[in-house]
Amino acid sequence: MRLTTALSSTISIALLCSSLVAGGKQASPDQTPEPSPNPPQTYGILLFRAFELLDVFGPLEALSLLATRTNLTLYLLSETLSPVSTQPLLPAMNPFNSTFFPTINPTHTLDTAPLLDVLIVPGGLGTRSPYLNLTLEYIKTVYPSLDFLLTICTGSALVAKTGLLDGRRATTNKAAWNGSIANAPNVHWVPRARWVVDGNIWTSSGVSAGIDATLAFIKEYYGREEASEIADLMEYVWHEDPDWDPFADVWDVPGA
Amino acid sequence: MRLTTALSSTISIALLCSSLVAGGKQASPDQTPEPSPNPPQTYGILLFRAFELLDVFGPLEALSLLATRTNLTLYLLSETLSPVSTQPLLPAMNPFNSTFFPTINPTHTLDTAPLLDVLIVPGGLGTRSPYLNLTLEYIKTVYPSLDFLLTICTGSALVAKTGLLDGRRATTNKAAWNGSIANAPNVHWVPRARWVVDGNIWTSSGVSAGIDATLAFIKEYYGREEASEIADLMEYVWHEDPDWDPFADVWDVPGA
Repeated sequence: MRLTTALSSTISIALLCSSLVAGGKQASPDQTPEPSPNPPQTYGILLFRAFELLDVFGPLEALSLLATRTNLTLYLLSETLSPVSTQPLLPAMNPFNSTFFPTINPTHTLDTAPLLDVLIVPGGLGTRSPYLNLTLEYIKTVYPSLDFLLTICTGSALVAKTGLLDGRRATTNKAAWNGSIANAPNVHWVPRARWVVDGNIWTSSGVSAGIDATLAFIKEYYGREEASEIADLMEYVWHEDPDWDPFADVWDVPGA
Repeated sequence: MRLTTALSSTISIALLCSSLVAGGKQASPDQTPEPSPNPPQTYGILLFRAFELLDVFGPLEALSLLATRTNLTLYLLSETLSPVSTQPLLPAMNPFNSTFFPTINPTHTLDTAPLLDVLIVPGGLGTRSPYLNLTLEYIKTVYPSLDFLLTICTGSALVAKTGLLDGRRATTNKAAWNGSIANAPNVHWVPRARWVVDGNIWTSSGVSAGIDATLAFIKEYYGREEASEIADLMEYVWHEDPDWDPFADVWDVPGA
């Protein structure tokens, strides 16, 4: 999606209405957002060694169901076209020598990736790899052409390395909080949040929180009814409140 | 895992204790099950065209985290070694002509599949395919050698075609209830259940319910502490009660 005249008009009307309806960005009188007239259509998700499975497939489950209700395209992006494994890079990260690592196939390399409306960056142990320079360069380069950047879990710690989160509010995995925020002092880390929206960057808390962030994104741009029906089809109890975050307490996040 | 003398002894003691502790299958006095002394180690999951993403990757997320705490092996099984796509077989199942279909790589064909402790059968639109005879034959043939069979979502409708669920209690996806149970009149379908255990067959309700069923399975055979910590690492609010099922009402399941 690129901003069209129609969407610009809607935004203008919404801005106008916001003086009439309290808190009313694109809000109808009952505060339920209306679907965007020109919602995102093209999604890319980054894959890298030792990504976290549910960070990828929680959001993709919700979006796959959305794709049965509107036309969507998904690209799976990685540095090469080789299947991407969830196997950790370091044996120390697999202390019981398990063999439990699905592999997923990219559709495009970072060099051949088509233009995207939305880029999703998952988390996982792989975000700690020192070998992700091409991936970081891609995120930084592609960001100005995106409509939205979504990070799941420690995907925000990866994106923070590009500087794109500097000066922004963001959140990340609560179990891995201290390590994730340590090298990104210029980000306004929100310690109690299921997800955070700052401008066109959405960051979610850990793992399952990616499902709630994605449903909130669907609600915002495709309508609440779509999001609610998708949650019901997933038999998932959707957490609609971005401030709901019991895991800030479970993991004793400083400042929560 | 095969039943060892040690495990048989434990079962005998547990059966003995069950007369002393109400409802006490392998229960300690506070009703918290103890971890099995010889829990399952080798898992296989079936992949077929148009499987439901989260049916596979919800359980595998929980088990992947378990695999960092004990030695586990995962095999991904399909009729051939070709990457398995989530794309529906029929264009009518993709009414907006979306292109939103990840592909996953099997590790073994059904012919070369190693012996398993646990077989997981996911659901999805693909379970309605008339071309799954080899898969059905595999399930039927391998079942006697398994310690456990787990189905997620409409995976139970697929397994029901083999006759293995006849005379057993089972559940399935609540949004697809009527279609799923229609051709399996000899199964005792439970209309309100997040998951159902009958003997060594566990059946879950739709999609996300697979996460709760898997966590319950982990609790039963690896201990409650492992299951609880894994749920917390996933930042997932674990539903521990198998009878908790708001989606039986959402989808107006007959008899619920």
